[in-house]
Amino acid sequence: MAAAVLYMSMSLDGYISGPNDEPGNPGGDGFGRLHAWALAPGGEGFRTAGVAGKLLAEVSSTGAVLVGRRTAEQVDHWGGDHHDRGVPIFVVSHRPPGPLVAAYPLVTYVNDGIESAMAQAKAAAGGRDVLVHGAYTAQRALETGVLDEVQIHQVPVLFGGGRRLFDVLPSHIELDVLQVIDTPEATHIRYRVRR
Amino acid sequence: MAAAVLYMSMSLDGYISGPNDEPGNPGGDGFGRLHAWALAPGGEGFRTAGVAGKLLAEVSSTGAVLVGRRTAEQVDHWGGDHHDRGVPIFVVSHRPPGPLVAAYPLVTYVNDGIESAMAQAKAAAGGRDVLVHGAYTAQRALETGVLDEVQIHQVPVLFGGGRRLFDVLPSHIELDVLQVIDTPEATHIRYRVRR
Repeated sequence: MAAAVLYMSMSLDGYISGPNDEPGNPGGDGFGRLHAWALAPGGEGFRTAGVAGKLLAEVSSTGAVLVGRRTAEQVDHWGGDHHDRGVPIFVVSHRPPGPLVAAYPLVTYVNDGIESAMAQAKAAAGGRDVLVHGAYTAQRALETGVLDEVQIHQVPVLFGGGRRLFDVLPSHIELDVLQVIDTPEATHIRYRVRR
Repeated sequence: MAAAVLYMSMSLDGYISGPNDEPGNPGGDGFGRLHAWALAPGGEGFRTAGVAGKLLAEVSSTGAVLVGRRTAEQVDHWGGDHHDRGVPIFVVSHRPPGPLVAAYPLVTYVNDGIESAMAQAKAAAGGRDVLVHGAYTAQRALETGVLDEVQIHQVPVLFGGGRRLFDVLPSHIELDVLQVIDTPEATHIRYRVRR
């Protein structure tokens, strides 16, 4: 059964971006620290071996992307192709897309809500998982009951400031621990959202 | 080497108490949920076996308690004896103790700061660990560099509101993962605070 999965690198104190997140400093101060577990030493791209390689391969095997407009625009829709496998990207927004989006055939703006966007993403994913992106979108997906799983890469650091993944949610939500992978770089915990 | 250790049950979204934390509802809505991993089924006190029993035995073997005034007063200084082993309790406060504290010979109020309180607690612990209690005190201990380890019992639940363990800290603090214990009830992660 295909799942809608949120993948997030998070500090122990809950931050997914650091202070001073602005153009020219994307992700804020210390953003690289949050993703060090995934990056090859020496700045040579992503890790391909070990636990990190396996976890990143899972992300690359997803069949569609669901993302909020803020994140999508911040990264220019990943140049039209999120993980270079030609999978469709669904952007949740009440407003029509900007003019440059027409150049990206894989990108679809959905203006009738996150449930509709998720239904389209799951259909397009062809039995593979749907990658959910962005803190705001994750919160709305949780709120509307369309998020199935959460993969947290919990990094042993306290940021003390920045943007938190879980801001105020509408209500108490129970999770089940599906898997814990223990490495010095991060504690990788996968949860199922209970309905 | 004896360590000052913060033990905390925390939701994935960082809460250590729920919404509506007030007299008559200590710990707020859902507080019991955060500590279910530690409680015997049927309300018969704490677990004594398994992972939970082992982790709780560690807490009971600490040699002193360091706590903030808010927490100490909320629970009436645990009746003068935190875990019924006769270990001293040091309360950090700028104000003198209330009149009822004189009845508790194990309780000492320290009014010259958390570094002094920790030095006294470590000396009194006689080589055993010091148990640090309370979110505000934990933050000040981190800030002043007197907290050695953090034992988080991370509970698979999103609270969406309440009181967060890690509110705004003064700066970026690196941790090392010392141990991860994976159970369905909680992911128990022990960190060392890097200096």
